[in-house]
Amino acid sequence: MKQRKILLTEDEMPRQWYNILADIKMNPPLGPDGKPIGPEDLAPVFPMNLIEQEVSTERWIDIPEGILDVLSIWRPAPLFRAYNLEKALGTPARIYYKYEGYSPPGSHKPNTAVAQAYYNKEFGIKKLTTETGAGQWGSALAFACSQYGLECKVYMVRISFDQKPYRKSMMQTWGANCVASPSSETKAGRAILEKDPDTPGSLGIAISEAVEAAVSDESGQTRYSLGSVLNHVMLHQTIIGLEAKKQLEKIGEYPDIVIGCAGGGSNFAGLAFPFAHDVINGKEVAIYPVEPTACPTMTRAPFAYDHGDTAGYTPLLPMHSLGHTFVPPPLHAGGLRYHGMAPTVSQLIVDGIMEPKAFGQVETYEAGILCARTEGVIAAPETNHALACVIDEAKKAKEEGKEKVILFNWSGHGLIDLAAYDKFMSGQLEDFDFPADDIAEAEKVLEQYPKPEIIKNV
Amino acid sequence: MKQRKILLTEDEMPRQWYNILADIKMNPPLGPDGKPIGPEDLAPVFPMNLIEQEVSTERWIDIPEGILDVLSIWRPAPLFRAYNLEKALGTPARIYYKYEGYSPPGSHKPNTAVAQAYYNKEFGIKKLTTETGAGQWGSALAFACSQYGLECKVYMVRISFDQKPYRKSMMQTWGANCVASPSSETKAGRAILEKDPDTPGSLGIAISEAVEAAVSDESGQTRYSLGSVLNHVMLHQTIIGLEAKKQLEKIGEYPDIVIGCAGGGSNFAGLAFPFAHDVINGKEVAIYPVEPTACPTMTRAPFAYDHGDTAGYTPLLPMHSLGHTFVPPPLHAGGLRYHGMAPTVSQLIVDGIMEPKAFGQVETYEAGILCARTEGVIAAPETNHALACVIDEAKKAKEEGKEKVILFNWSGHGLIDLAAYDKFMSGQLEDFDFPADDIAEAEKVLEQYPKPEIIKNV
Repeated sequence: MKQRKILLTEDEMPRQWYNILADIKMNPPLGPDGKPIGPEDLAPVFPMNLIEQEVSTERWIDIPEGILDVLSIWRPAPLFRAYNLEKALGTPARIYYKYEGYSPPGSHKPNTAVAQAYYNKEFGIKKLTTETGAGQWGSALAFACSQYGLECKVYMVRISFDQKPYRKSMMQTWGANCVASPSSETKAGRAILEKDPDTPGSLGIAISEAVEAAVSDESGQTRYSLGSVLNHVMLHQTIIGLEAKKQLEKIGEYPDIVIGCAGGGSNFAGLAFPFAHDVINGKEVAIYPVEPTACPTMTRAPFAYDHGDTAGYTPLLPMHSLGHTFVPPPLHAGGLRYHGMAPTVSQLIVDGIMEPKAFGQVETYEAGILCARTEGVIAAPETNHALACVIDEAKKAKEEGKEKVILFNWSGHGLIDLAAYDKFMSGQLEDFDFPADDIAEAEKVLEQYPKPEIIKNV
Repeated sequence: MKQRKILLTEDEMPRQWYNILADIKMNPPLGPDGKPIGPEDLAPVFPMNLIEQEVSTERWIDIPEGILDVLSIWRPAPLFRAYNLEKALGTPARIYYKYEGYSPPGSHKPNTAVAQAYYNKEFGIKKLTTETGAGQWGSALAFACSQYGLECKVYMVRISFDQKPYRKSMMQTWGANCVASPSSETKAGRAILEKDPDTPGSLGIAISEAVEAAVSDESGQTRYSLGSVLNHVMLHQTIIGLEAKKQLEKIGEYPDIVIGCAGGGSNFAGLAFPFAHDVINGKEVAIYPVEPTACPTMTRAPFAYDHGDTAGYTPLLPMHSLGHTFVPPPLHAGGLRYHGMAPTVSQLIVDGIMEPKAFGQVETYEAGILCARTEGVIAAPETNHALACVIDEAKKAKEEGKEKVILFNWSGHGLIDLAAYDKFMSGQLEDFDFPADDIAEAEKVLEQYPKPEIIKNV
């Protein structure tokens, strides 16, 4: 029997996260006055111990015992050799994937949700607020808060709240309070509802509500939690890549190509940053973040300063952005519809350390079906983007007759996304064009902000 | 950090299944003439290599490499120590669970689906048919068939087909053809539709359609596949208990109590039979199969000869049965609504080796919520029945001040059953009475058949 899984014991779990800020220089986040913001500016929103991580330039940051303990519910995650997919493609490439679908909510999101809940608890916080679109992040934070006895309030975009009642039930099973956004509980929500009582809501509105609910709690015991984009989120996810490195070492392998889907960037960064560290130190690894052609943040949008949210409440972040007013088409990959990209990932693209790729929706579902029928596992719609790129690279390796080692992140399972598979199989799923006009539009939106410096780290 | 998981490597996977028929005597299955049936009577329905397993009395049966290879997609399954649940209950009991939710469809069912697909393929069969109610079994067989390149046809009870479209999508993603039953594709289906075009269907009708579709295929290359009740199904599931034994040995533990939910009996038997073997050889282990009070097959129904299906097409099996015409209430645990119980489990109850328990629906969801918020994992509604019993026993251990070791089977996750959790949390889930009249009714139905001999194996 061929060895399909490379496992680590709990004792072999990484004890430190890798912080890419030790290895690269970045443009700073800016406040409304166009000046760099400091830690204290973020204090009403996040607890100071997380803010310190956000700005830290220490290369290795210890993972507290109290986080490892909860992560051990599903970590270390297995590394799989995709023998069946290799065989189906007839490729000489050896394909490996890190599988993040074993976490209780089924994706990589709890890696940071658990850490954030822990640090907030340590800081004396009693309640976390957040927003969620499709529901992956909200359910991850609900799970994490239940583990540390924190209250959790999730503002879920109304259209998803109505269309995906199971996600709400999942959050409630873990004890979280999930309401449709806009809600009548916040000023921001009430203002929108007054204008348009039937609004489907948006992630931008939900963020505004969650931030408002956190900062306006007079007890001072509530904070806000974000599931992607920020440096500390990327940091917490690096356990994925650090585990993968150890696992590959055990069998004497090292990747030629590293692939992950990227919406805000967190699952991708989690796998890729430990390898980016090696590239910075002279190794040769091709690193591909993958996005939908219909939301081409990395492959087509400018590198600019922009807000993280639609309403423009957050600091200006230096990133690839389609403009914070961008409205993505109704893609069935809720996690890949964000207008921006994590500043760290954006900087590494500017550095040429990472080379983004984009795939059309239909091709990604074709990849998902092939992988379900070979590897056996039904992937999340986001993961399907990584799969499409993996298949593409494996085919190239076949054409070139090269025994390449491909490593990718299987960010989650798709068992709660089967409606999208159904649509694909019944021929109702389409590709969306991304008009050139939209880039001109983005450039116009971004014009009003300072330009980031073009820093080259390598 | 406390060790939460006890893992096995792929090399440590059991290489043989345990066959309880080597250790107990049973009443034989009977044909329509009331006489014991032989292997040849089953040949139109099952391939001969599986029929040989069905009647084998060899204690250990080798697991072929081609089965181990596919099982290794998710096996060996982890054994968890339920530290958080123990702490929440303040019990001195040490609670361990075998987790079967990592399989691609999310339950224990693929353990036998993979084996059955493999043996059918070996026998030259090209296509399998089966029925499914809630969809767990149909999706497991769809997954297994995709691994061996077999066609798969699933007759899904119409009401579930309409209410649970995601299960159908899951089967189709793995390439299976799933139709609502009754369908117009079989005589049995057409006959029902003619009488009642709007029938919600039933498992009995779906079995009739699947069996008819298999035996009427003139190419001789189609067979039928059953997901529970039969001896070879229980056999394939014993890998669960054999792994658990190895895992407990590693940490010097042995269970005082073994618990599993039981509908047809397969996940329970899978965990419990290797321990029943020890009981037969003089060990003391309390073994509790758990069922709903609303479908009290083991705790209240007679031990009698009855058909496995509603239409009365199958041989008469010696088992605890509520009568094959029994219509269960609309419990939210689709896998525990069967009128009968595996003959092997039934015999072990007659022997006093197993002591069945029953719990009301509301109590099982309370248990499920507690475990989601402590252990972190949302359980399948069926598993919630095992959880209720575990909590009960852990509380008894607390009252008695005894350090008991409790082992149970976490048969699957509940991520596709969140509608039921939602109903529970909104106070819409109720307990169902089981009227004494229904037992009298069952006795009347069963009167017409021969009485099984009361065999005592210990």
